[in-house]
Amino acid sequence: MSQFPFSALDQACMTQALALAAKGLYTTDPNPRVGCVIATGEGVVGQGWHRRAGEPHAEVHALREAGAQAHGATAYVTLEPCAHHGRTPPCADALIEAGVARVVVACQDPFPAVAGQGIERLRQAGIQVDIGLLQAEARALNAGFFSRIERGRPWLRLKMAMSLDGRTALVNGESRWITGEAARADAHRWRARSSAILSSAATVLADDPLLTARLQDEAVEVVTPVRVILDRWLRTPDDARVLDGSAPTWLLHGELAKPSAIQAARARCVVMPERGKHLDLVAVMQWLASEGINEVHLEAGPTLAGALFTAGLADELLIYMAPVLLGDHAMPLLQLPNLLSMDERWDLQPLEQTMLGADLRLRFACLD
Amino acid sequence: MSQFPFSALDQACMTQALALAAKGLYTTDPNPRVGCVIATGEGVVGQGWHRRAGEPHAEVHALREAGAQAHGATAYVTLEPCAHHGRTPPCADALIEAGVARVVVACQDPFPAVAGQGIERLRQAGIQVDIGLLQAEARALNAGFFSRIERGRPWLRLKMAMSLDGRTALVNGESRWITGEAARADAHRWRARSSAILSSAATVLADDPLLTARLQDEAVEVVTPVRVILDRWLRTPDDARVLDGSAPTWLLHGELAKPSAIQAARARCVVMPERGKHLDLVAVMQWLASEGINEVHLEAGPTLAGALFTAGLADELLIYMAPVLLGDHAMPLLQLPNLLSMDERWDLQPLEQTMLGADLRLRFACLD
Repeated sequence: MSQFPFSALDQACMTQALALAAKGLYTTDPNPRVGCVIATGEGVVGQGWHRRAGEPHAEVHALREAGAQAHGATAYVTLEPCAHHGRTPPCADALIEAGVARVVVACQDPFPAVAGQGIERLRQAGIQVDIGLLQAEARALNAGFFSRIERGRPWLRLKMAMSLDGRTALVNGESRWITGEAARADAHRWRARSSAILSSAATVLADDPLLTARLQDEAVEVVTPVRVILDRWLRTPDDARVLDGSAPTWLLHGELAKPSAIQAARARCVVMPERGKHLDLVAVMQWLASEGINEVHLEAGPTLAGALFTAGLADELLIYMAPVLLGDHAMPLLQLPNLLSMDERWDLQPLEQTMLGADLRLRFACLD
Repeated sequence: MSQFPFSALDQACMTQALALAAKGLYTTDPNPRVGCVIATGEGVVGQGWHRRAGEPHAEVHALREAGAQAHGATAYVTLEPCAHHGRTPPCADALIEAGVARVVVACQDPFPAVAGQGIERLRQAGIQVDIGLLQAEARALNAGFFSRIERGRPWLRLKMAMSLDGRTALVNGESRWITGEAARADAHRWRARSSAILSSAATVLADDPLLTARLQDEAVEVVTPVRVILDRWLRTPDDARVLDGSAPTWLLHGELAKPSAIQAARARCVVMPERGKHLDLVAVMQWLASEGINEVHLEAGPTLAGALFTAGLADELLIYMAPVLLGDHAMPLLQLPNLLSMDERWDLQPLEQTMLGADLRLRFACLD
């Protein structure tokens, strides 16, 4: 199926460009994942993807590979080519110089210094520009980047492992392990694509987690996510594993708390505004965005998860459901306000269901 | 794929016999669902299925259709042909008289008056009998019948509708509706195949449910399941909908409770043994089996569901999970004893996952 003005060949080339973009899933941060395919009537002559911030953009790689064959060809890019001098020269200029005849863009760049200017520059140079092919897919690949630029806060994914009866730990706090190996390995891939792994001092004190992304295929390159701990009173112990130096750690704390020498040495300690008895979650998320954090992956208990959900800051639930029962004494999935009527319930939008061993991975979008 | 001594044709014929058997899903109670296909080298010459207790067995219908062509043919039956005079003459004799050369049987009849005798009689008459083709499927179709005969208790399915966070009602008791129409229509099909719909006086008092099987396709014939209410103190109100006469109702109560005139007129009131503060659930299930109840479909709250599960009487969980959150104040899925260690958790075996509208149907087998 093709959609005017796009042909089946356009669809195939943009699909390939998206697959290329996804190769940067674990490494482009804080930049978006971008892929580029250059094709003539005879076939693909150049391909490229953006690997790391500071390194060449996708278009540059593809144009290099295409060489003179780019002349008169069509370039497919998953994100509008940049028109500004950042760490690399503008890609729009490179496409013009190479003499491409047409550029197909999946979605516009939301970044104020780019938004529409790349497309405008291409059109002024006489290049045909068609926009919107596989736009939803291209935006989904960079949900965090778009959220940070457009909404001023990161895309927040609440990850939770639970029993069939919605319980995340025993009443004594024991939670290892509810799910099986396949589910836990999958969770590390979701960590790896995130800019930050968010947790709470309560979780650090209860479980002493490492909060790093550990992929089974160690050859896969990962830009290590920042470990962000909401720790109003700086209760994170000096010997906590999140202070082991294996990844950057930020301790976000209240004004009255003072970092220990070891906390100050091993973590970036930052004062956040407070709101009632807790750190101001809206302010925290805005600050994380200002620090270039795109996707946030939450690994915490029902209190913080519930508070973020209730504050309207959660975008997605990533649930691993094990085929076990833990009973009504066990810990809940989310602490949420009491409901007086079924009309007040929180609706979610199902995104997908996948079996992982005996466990079920369920993803939901949170609705506004 | 065929399995010795069965050919691909055998597989196809038995698959068809199982499909025929399933036509009796809602009507054969308390008899098993049985199908029969008679085939020669040229093709199928007779088909039949058992429709209702007291009416002819599947083999009789198939032999009638096959007529003289049954001579030298192969008969495929999903359950061992009967050898005893029940409400109908023995099917083994009918197959011998018709001159079939071979009989393929999916599984032996567990009923003491039959077990193996039908097969023995066929073999003594010189007929080749091959046993075990699609046995698991044939047993699954009659899980309740096999459970009643082999274990002396019905097959018990706990049906529950819950939110993603495992909650079945608000703290004020409101539970209508957590799931959508497609899930609720599906639940009525599971009710319809059951011999009994089991509930508690607490549920009757809270929700005043009708507890009948109402299929969307009203043309489908259903032998109405019995409504069984565990009501130690006979608290079911005289004007409760379960006493409306639209289906038989049994009120199982303790020795000290006396039925009201209306309860006695509109329901069968039966004294059950007590155990502690409740009716003896093991005794209740054994008694239901003695009354010819094959499959029991539970529609109740977390107390009775949890008690049946804890007592080891539950065989299957039928869960409808809606993409909503109700929060930690809401009612749990099952009330179960507190766990001191993750090793004590209750493991389940996933059977299937099916989307029904926006809801997810999850089925699990309970493990011993």
